[in-house]
Amino acid sequence: MKRGFFITLEGGEGSGKSTQGKRLADHFRSRGRDVVLTREPGGTPQGEALRALLVRGDTGTWSPASEAMLMSAAREVHVRTVIAPAIAAGALVISDRFMDSTRVYQGHAGGVPADVIAALERAAVGDCVPDLTLIFDLSAEEGLARATSRGSDCEDRFERKGRDFHDKLRDGFHAIALAEPHRCVLIDAAQDLDAVQAAVLKAVEARLHG
Amino acid sequence: MKRGFFITLEGGEGSGKSTQGKRLADHFRSRGRDVVLTREPGGTPQGEALRALLVRGDTGTWSPASEAMLMSAAREVHVRTVIAPAIAAGALVISDRFMDSTRVYQGHAGGVPADVIAALERAAVGDCVPDLTLIFDLSAEEGLARATSRGSDCEDRFERKGRDFHDKLRDGFHAIALAEPHRCVLIDAAQDLDAVQAAVLKAVEARLHG
Repeated sequence: MKRGFFITLEGGEGSGKSTQGKRLADHFRSRGRDVVLTREPGGTPQGEALRALLVRGDTGTWSPASEAMLMSAAREVHVRTVIAPAIAAGALVISDRFMDSTRVYQGHAGGVPADVIAALERAAVGDCVPDLTLIFDLSAEEGLARATSRGSDCEDRFERKGRDFHDKLRDGFHAIALAEPHRCVLIDAAQDLDAVQAAVLKAVEARLHG
Repeated sequence: MKRGFFITLEGGEGSGKSTQGKRLADHFRSRGRDVVLTREPGGTPQGEALRALLVRGDTGTWSPASEAMLMSAAREVHVRTVIAPAIAAGALVISDRFMDSTRVYQGHAGGVPADVIAALERAAVGDCVPDLTLIFDLSAEEGLARATSRGSDCEDRFERKGRDFHDKLRDGFHAIALAEPHRCVLIDAAQDLDAVQAAVLKAVEARLHG
C-alpha cells in the first residue's frame, strides 16, 4: 500500500487555518482520497482532556514550559495512535497545528529554551515529520481583528496577549519557513478565502505530484 | 529569613515513603517547625488533574514518554507555585516523590532517552534541586507484596508490570544514590516502621544541622 501524506497547517490566530483545512479535506475526499482531518491540541481522548486543561484553563494557568510539555505529551499520543497509523494506511493526514506551534508559541514567543523544545519534539514526533507545512501568514493586527470578530473564546488566552506577542509569533513562523524551505510553504492569508484556497491547493498538488 | 530545606522521598511501590513522610512531618511540626508535606503527581490543582489522567487513566493510557512530559509539566507548576515559595519562606518541604521518580520510572525502567529526561528536569526543576533525597530501598518482591496487601489501586498500573520492571526501578534508584551521594541517602525499608523512622530522622538531622 502506498504511504500516505502528512500536511500540517500553522499560523497565528485568525489566519484561516481551520477553514482552509476543512476545504482541503473536502477537496480530496470528493476525489475519493482517504483523508484524516485532525487538530492540536486535541485529536485523541488524551489530547482533548489536555486541551480542556490548557485552553479552557479548567484547573488554572500554566507556564510556557509546562504548556510545551502538555502539548508534547498530547502530540506523542496523537502521532502514535492517529497520525502515524493513518499515514501507514495510505491516508492524506491534515493536522490543524502541530510541532511548529510549540516551537513558536512556547519557544520563540514564550521563552522556553530551544534545547528543551527540541528534546520534546524528538520525543513526541520522532520521524513523523510533516511532508508539507502550510504557514498561514497574516499581520498580527489583521489576525487579532479577525479572531476577535469571530468571537471564538477557545484561544482567548493568546488573543489577550497583545501585539508584541503576536508579532513574535509571526517572526517565529517566518524563521521556520526560511530554515526549512523543503517542508514549509508560506501562504498569504490576507487574500480572500477562495484565493487562499487556490494557493493552498497549488502548494499541495506541487508536493503530492511534484 | 532563613531559607528552608527541601527533602524528597523516593523508592518503589510499598516502600513506606508515604507513611514515613507523614511521620517526618509530624516530628518537625511538633517541634514548631513550619512543614509543607506534598506529593507527586499532585500537589497543585493542575497536578491533581494530571494525576487523574495519569494514575486513574481517565482518558486512556500514555506511553512512558508522554508520562514523563505530563509528570514534568505538573512538576514545573508544583515547584513554581508550592515548593520554591515555601522554601523561600523558610519551611521544611517534604515531597513524596519528585524528579528521581521520573528518571527511574519513565527513564531507566520506561526507556525514555536520558537526554529527554534531562531536558524535562532542567525545565521543570531549574535550581530547585532537593537538599536531601531519601531513597527507600526494598526488594521488588517485598515491595510488591506490601503494595498488593494494602490494596491501593492508585499505583496499580505499575504494580501490574511484574518483577523485571520493579527490579529495574530498584537498579535505577541505586544508580542515582551512587551518582549523587551528597544529595541521596539509601534507607533500608525492609526494617520495621520505627527502625525506618529512626534511620530517616538520623539522615535528616545530619543534613539539617551537619
